[in-house]
Amino acid sequence: MLLCDIGNTTVSIYDGKQVSKKLTRYFKPSTIKEEICYICVNPALKESIRSHSNWIDLASRVDYASYYPTMGIDRIMACEAVSDGVVVDAGSAITVDLVRGGKFEGGFIYPGVVAMQNAYKKISSQLDSSFNFELSLDKMPKNTQDAITYGFIAPLVKEVLSHKLSIYLCGGYADDLASFFSDAKVDELLVFKGMQKFIRKASLC
Amino acid sequence: MLLCDIGNTTVSIYDGKQVSKKLTRYFKPSTIKEEICYICVNPALKESIRSHSNWIDLASRVDYASYYPTMGIDRIMACEAVSDGVVVDAGSAITVDLVRGGKFEGGFIYPGVVAMQNAYKKISSQLDSSFNFELSLDKMPKNTQDAITYGFIAPLVKEVLSHKLSIYLCGGYADDLASFFSDAKVDELLVFKGMQKFIRKASLC
Repeated sequence: MLLCDIGNTTVSIYDGKQVSKKLTRYFKPSTIKEEICYICVNPALKESIRSHSNWIDLASRVDYASYYPTMGIDRIMACEAVSDGVVVDAGSAITVDLVRGGKFEGGFIYPGVVAMQNAYKKISSQLDSSFNFELSLDKMPKNTQDAITYGFIAPLVKEVLSHKLSIYLCGGYADDLASFFSDAKVDELLVFKGMQKFIRKASLC
Repeated sequence: MLLCDIGNTTVSIYDGKQVSKKLTRYFKPSTIKEEICYICVNPALKESIRSHSNWIDLASRVDYASYYPTMGIDRIMACEAVSDGVVVDAGSAITVDLVRGGKFEGGFIYPGVVAMQNAYKKISSQLDSSFNFELSLDKMPKNTQDAITYGFIAPLVKEVLSHKLSIYLCGGYADDLASFFSDAKVDELLVFKGMQKFIRKASLC
């Protein structure tokens, strides 16, 4: 069975061996003929998929009482993959979710790399700089680039570490953040692993 | 002697008793006839002030080796007010600076309330929400408004507290943040107090 994670920018399809990616805006669900379990955060595509009976929407099987009604389905599936840990999904937003004993305990949303860079730029042209992903957080900064990089990264890192749980890192910017979370498990398949676990639990296959 | 802090939006003048504020874009330096010590982050106004001999620019007296060349003069003056502490200046950006034994030890820049709100809004219309400044940070959020509020506030608070120093809070958004820093000293005059201390030190009066 194929698994599909539809984001606002990218459609990722996992066949159990590898992930193929396509742009969401050009993606046509009718090109997939076999059975496919999916999650989707794109409202337009979600609507057009409904008419295809081989597409199985996992969101409709979720017990939202264990999460919350407006929580992104991709966050939920990443949490399903983990028994105990902090799940950090670094995409356009960085979502940070706590799971203890297989139970979602809440989470928060932090702006992603691009959103933060734009936020600094909008405050002042003097803060219009890329981040220095090789910065050491052991020392307080004494220049502008490091001051905004530290401001973006260090508070997030201290918050994530404060929960004293294993850290699971996924999403498009996982590699940029990995060096700041020395013991994190970087797992690009986390959402798909959560989907697989969820499918087994819900006896969908 | 008058003191003047010129920001990009507001000009604040302190006569030793009270602060009066005017909009930077309508402010005319020639309306002040007496001696006035000032700091200014607005390049255009800084240029026009140079021709007025009663205006004394404190930035020209700063020993930048103790700070760093591109550091905002308002941050520097707030640091001058403090011997030991973390100075949190919550304006369009939130600057966080460490002072130990009267020495600046570095600092970082975090986006301010409006910048963060806009950053979330740009990521997704679902994150277009005001912040809940009455949120308790003791519990992980389970709804969108609290998830973005926690994301904005909790990492910043943990970072600031991690330095285990007294916290001095100033700037236009100090009151919004005060409840999250229970032991912080909120001091709207902090920059002016730093200017007074700096003037005495530099024997400018």
